[in-house]
Amino acid sequence: MSADFELASRTARMNVSAIREILKVVNRPGVISLAGGIPSPDSFPMQAMDALASSVFDKYGSAALQYDLTEGFPPLRQALSGVLSKIGITVAADEVLIASGSQGVLDGIGKILIDPGDLVAVEAPTYLGAIQALSPYEPSYVEVATDEDGAIPESLEEVLAGSEVKLIYLVPTFQNPTGRTLTLERRHRIAEIITDHGVLLVEDDPYRSLRFRGCPLPPIKSLAPDHVVYVSTLSKVFAPGLRIGFTVAPQAIRDWLVIAKQGVDLHTSTLNQALAAEYIAGGYLEEQIPKIVDLYRPKQQRLLRALAEDMPPGFSWSQPEGGMFVWVQGPQAFDMDPVYARSVDNGAAFVPGKYFFASPDRGRSTMRLNFTTATDDQISQAVGVIGHAIESELDS
Amino acid sequence: MSADFELASRTARMNVSAIREILKVVNRPGVISLAGGIPSPDSFPMQAMDALASSVFDKYGSAALQYDLTEGFPPLRQALSGVLSKIGITVAADEVLIASGSQGVLDGIGKILIDPGDLVAVEAPTYLGAIQALSPYEPSYVEVATDEDGAIPESLEEVLAGSEVKLIYLVPTFQNPTGRTLTLERRHRIAEIITDHGVLLVEDDPYRSLRFRGCPLPPIKSLAPDHVVYVSTLSKVFAPGLRIGFTVAPQAIRDWLVIAKQGVDLHTSTLNQALAAEYIAGGYLEEQIPKIVDLYRPKQQRLLRALAEDMPPGFSWSQPEGGMFVWVQGPQAFDMDPVYARSVDNGAAFVPGKYFFASPDRGRSTMRLNFTTATDDQISQAVGVIGHAIESELDS
Repeated sequence: MSADFELASRTARMNVSAIREILKVVNRPGVISLAGGIPSPDSFPMQAMDALASSVFDKYGSAALQYDLTEGFPPLRQALSGVLSKIGITVAADEVLIASGSQGVLDGIGKILIDPGDLVAVEAPTYLGAIQALSPYEPSYVEVATDEDGAIPESLEEVLAGSEVKLIYLVPTFQNPTGRTLTLERRHRIAEIITDHGVLLVEDDPYRSLRFRGCPLPPIKSLAPDHVVYVSTLSKVFAPGLRIGFTVAPQAIRDWLVIAKQGVDLHTSTLNQALAAEYIAGGYLEEQIPKIVDLYRPKQQRLLRALAEDMPPGFSWSQPEGGMFVWVQGPQAFDMDPVYARSVDNGAAFVPGKYFFASPDRGRSTMRLNFTTATDDQISQAVGVIGHAIESELDS
Repeated sequence: MSADFELASRTARMNVSAIREILKVVNRPGVISLAGGIPSPDSFPMQAMDALASSVFDKYGSAALQYDLTEGFPPLRQALSGVLSKIGITVAADEVLIASGSQGVLDGIGKILIDPGDLVAVEAPTYLGAIQALSPYEPSYVEVATDEDGAIPESLEEVLAGSEVKLIYLVPTFQNPTGRTLTLERRHRIAEIITDHGVLLVEDDPYRSLRFRGCPLPPIKSLAPDHVVYVSTLSKVFAPGLRIGFTVAPQAIRDWLVIAKQGVDLHTSTLNQALAAEYIAGGYLEEQIPKIVDLYRPKQQRLLRALAEDMPPGFSWSQPEGGMFVWVQGPQAFDMDPVYARSVDNGAAFVPGKYFFASPDRGRSTMRLNFTTATDDQISQAVGVIGHAIESELDS
């Protein structure tokens, strides 16, 4: 008898990432991709890696290769508590949990908190990876409206008044996909709202350090510590291939995240955690961040300038103070899908914005542009191609 | 309003690992632990690590630090397909998936296959980590009886005849906790049974290379390829801290494991996969395995000799041809719990066997002993203490 392997019903909620499929298509030669979302390899501290590796083996010896605590490698938790204190999250080392990428935290949050049908409030648009991590636990999504200043507190209040929300997921700083940042005033307002409603907020903060202009804003975690699971990663400021995420969560949640993680991967790579600990404690992180900012700032400027030159009237875009993305919005009835096809044919790719909405049929007139991996000239050229494709579409 | 953080109902099935709690207690100074289940740090190729790291950065440069495919780092998949072909699992590189430890595969299997209430058949006793990975998906467990030759095919047949089983989980070689190995005849028989019933078997095979005596036996995967998800790891032959597991699964399952993994950790550490690829392709693995076997074989002999000297009549134990564990069985009415307390008080620890059963109130007369991390003298001393504790318990 052949095996039938009947799938679990939750698989109906699990999809191949549309963006990953797009990335496969656009990674072909001759196509300049502004579709990606990965750091530039030039942002990695390659020159430091041999020294870091030697230092780890000298200092920790075989412990760097051994099983370790599910909670995380103590020197890394210690180092991260220092990093966090500088942004207003004052925690002891043992309040920091390490995960296998911030994705690992989101999976854990889904596993311990979400029953099928529970409501999760997300920005419209939101980060797709979060949807992918949470959806296997079968929540329903409800959308919080956003504008140039990030999530709109009044919209969040409406959502919370209308239904029992299990958790809220926000990327308040240099959001993926829009690049937008929640204002200080709104941070305070949202801290109040979640405290008043006794609802949990997952604050995903991977881009904070990539600030090109303006002043840092406090994480919402620092304003409502008991109601926020703060999630971040070293993927954008060290190396994504090491898969080091971390979280600071209310204690009951932290304890359950550890239990969930025991079943998923026991612990995150000890070696990579030791490398990360050395990277932070040895002062490399502090040295590298300005270099990464200097690498990305001119690329973003080039992108914004090219948009100003090549986008037709009726198109607008975000003006992020940092991060990795710019969000373009066309006239309401405009459809970005044919533009996408035309652009790729002519050698430039982006991600149609519709993929970043939890509900279908939203954001058809939008697109996400990334500027971290293309060269300056490629950025100009790609925006030229996209601009032409839009013009052709408007004319057709 | 204070946050209430109502937990998902599946958390009722998720427990702190009892063994981890035991390990915390016994890791105190002055206690010789035969309770652990970790490799000896002396088994790690420390002298090769600097060279491996340099070689990875030379060869792969920034790609070793970048995001990579969810499926796994191609050079590692290639290297593992070579390793697998030597044990009769003939697969192309792209049929091998990399996971974050074999735990990562088990979590994925649970996520894509198990609906609440689905039946999972496990050995009695079985590997606890599998229970911990699968339980959040809320299966029920049904036990397959075992003897000195591993799982009993007739018991498996009875289980399959009596109810609809979603999957079977076995550790056929040098099982954790018993050290027992399924005979060749039973491997063929079980391959037939799963094929006849069209049921999926998860074959977990982490200890295969740690063979001290006797001849290698084919994995069940090689006998019923379409019905087996083969799972293994580099944790026992390279370094557990790197968290490199791998799997070969029927294609439909493989495709879904990739989708599940995208939501959990995107991919396993690129750097560690590159180190593992170099470790295998550079011939280090083949060199290291005999060294590990030479390290463990005398320790196991010492343990078996000490048991022969110190166990009272009525106690028997497994005679494994490899692996990391020996299983001790007392007279049926004997209770190992007070022995555990008495032993720890006197400076020697083990894991009471009852923790390795899916059903409560089984295996109270059993214990698991590990021999990989203690010295030879410590092994003798610890078994002496345990023997005394048993004698005292029999006298009391």
